[in-house]
Amino acid sequence: MSTKLVNHSPRPIGDRLVEFSSSYCLSWRLAVETNNIKGWRTVPIQCLRHVEAYILGGQYDSDLNLIVDQISSYIDAIDVSDDGLDAWVLDVDDTCLSNIFYYEGKRFGGDPYDPHAFKEWASRGICPAIPPILRLFVKLIQRRFKVFLISGRDETTLGQTTLYNLHFQGFFGFERLILRNEAYKGQSGIIYKSEMRRKLMEEGYRIWGNVGDQWSDLHGQFVGNTTFKLPNPMYFVP
Amino acid sequence: MSTKLVNHSPRPIGDRLVEFSSSYCLSWRLAVETNNIKGWRTVPIQCLRHVEAYILGGQYDSDLNLIVDQISSYIDAIDVSDDGLDAWVLDVDDTCLSNIFYYEGKRFGGDPYDPHAFKEWASRGICPAIPPILRLFVKLIQRRFKVFLISGRDETTLGQTTLYNLHFQGFFGFERLILRNEAYKGQSGIIYKSEMRRKLMEEGYRIWGNVGDQWSDLHGQFVGNTTFKLPNPMYFVP
Repeated sequence: MSTKLVNHSPRPIGDRLVEFSSSYCLSWRLAVETNNIKGWRTVPIQCLRHVEAYILGGQYDSDLNLIVDQISSYIDAIDVSDDGLDAWVLDVDDTCLSNIFYYEGKRFGGDPYDPHAFKEWASRGICPAIPPILRLFVKLIQRRFKVFLISGRDETTLGQTTLYNLHFQGFFGFERLILRNEAYKGQSGIIYKSEMRRKLMEEGYRIWGNVGDQWSDLHGQFVGNTTFKLPNPMYFVP
Repeated sequence: MSTKLVNHSPRPIGDRLVEFSSSYCLSWRLAVETNNIKGWRTVPIQCLRHVEAYILGGQYDSDLNLIVDQISSYIDAIDVSDDGLDAWVLDVDDTCLSNIFYYEGKRFGGDPYDPHAFKEWASRGICPAIPPILRLFVKLIQRRFKVFLISGRDETTLGQTTLYNLHFQGFFGFERLILRNEAYKGQSGIIYKSEMRRKLMEEGYRIWGNVGDQWSDLHGQFVGNTTFKLPNPMYFVP
């Protein structure tokens, strides 16, 4: 059983569905998504296959699509001004770009965070776009919002690759890609991202919406008029 | 089909499971619980049976139990002071007391909010305790926390009944039941509850935790050191 978990050998769909319906794991995932469980380090071992089935079996895609439909309705009701100061904030990792291929090798969150391996993955610049978020991004650009991508990735070592990765995946026309520079190294996501948004507010931008897969993208200060939490049961960023 | 929905005729478990696994309704419920869908008035018609299956089929209980286990661990780590100022805030409706029997007659949220009928139900004083929350409550009292129950129920018309209902269901020893008086009539839950918590803070209380089934219980000001969102896919309180 445990060997099977490590190997990720292909399993029939029926097996996946059984795993997906696990009552405890459904409760664990809901608690994570609602921020009732905070500061967790790994997915509980009995939920590894549940999370895998959730991510790969279609429910993750369904959840993302429904949220983006909600965001689209919200956007449609906004009267965008001509002053060029109507802004949106999007996170990058597992918001614009997917790290599923990387986390597949980390048992979908069953293994603890491995900064070295993740950096190696990110520096390859091959993260695929998350399709519904790319659809949202294109809509924001078409509606003439200024889109700011704020990421905790290190500016010096991952700046060029991340820019290349985003362009290659179709994210064109954003106003700025904001990455973590030396001054914010080691700071929590909440502090760092609040500070980045504060600077945007000082520049006069009105942040209409803020989208991220971590609560640390959406909590803190200057969070924006409304926030949207994308699902991510694979890891927690403080 | 639609008649069946209205009648709530008993259905076999297998049928319930099929309804429960509906991909769209799982996404809708997650979006509601994470506050991605705000201000909704009724459960979407195609999800009525999903919500019923969720509430009655065991997953709601599983979700509540896991959250209360989390809260218990958090409580265990708190060093309660002798000054009698360590406080907790709990909501009442669908936090301490369950309105499931009432909502069963309202298609588990399929019908819009009916203030008259709800008041009639609440004035009967027969809401059952939600078992895991009663377990949490007893633990808080045993650990010598001051427990404040803050509810949007009207003080004049429902005060006596609510107090009776809580006592009859085993909620003994709380510090205060705070209900909505004339001054706060018509105000949103966020404003009213923030104001009630502000008063507690002014009295010197340290709010360690705040538990509710609505985001309006947990957002706003003076929310407490940490908040816990209980599931409720049946209705939304602004």
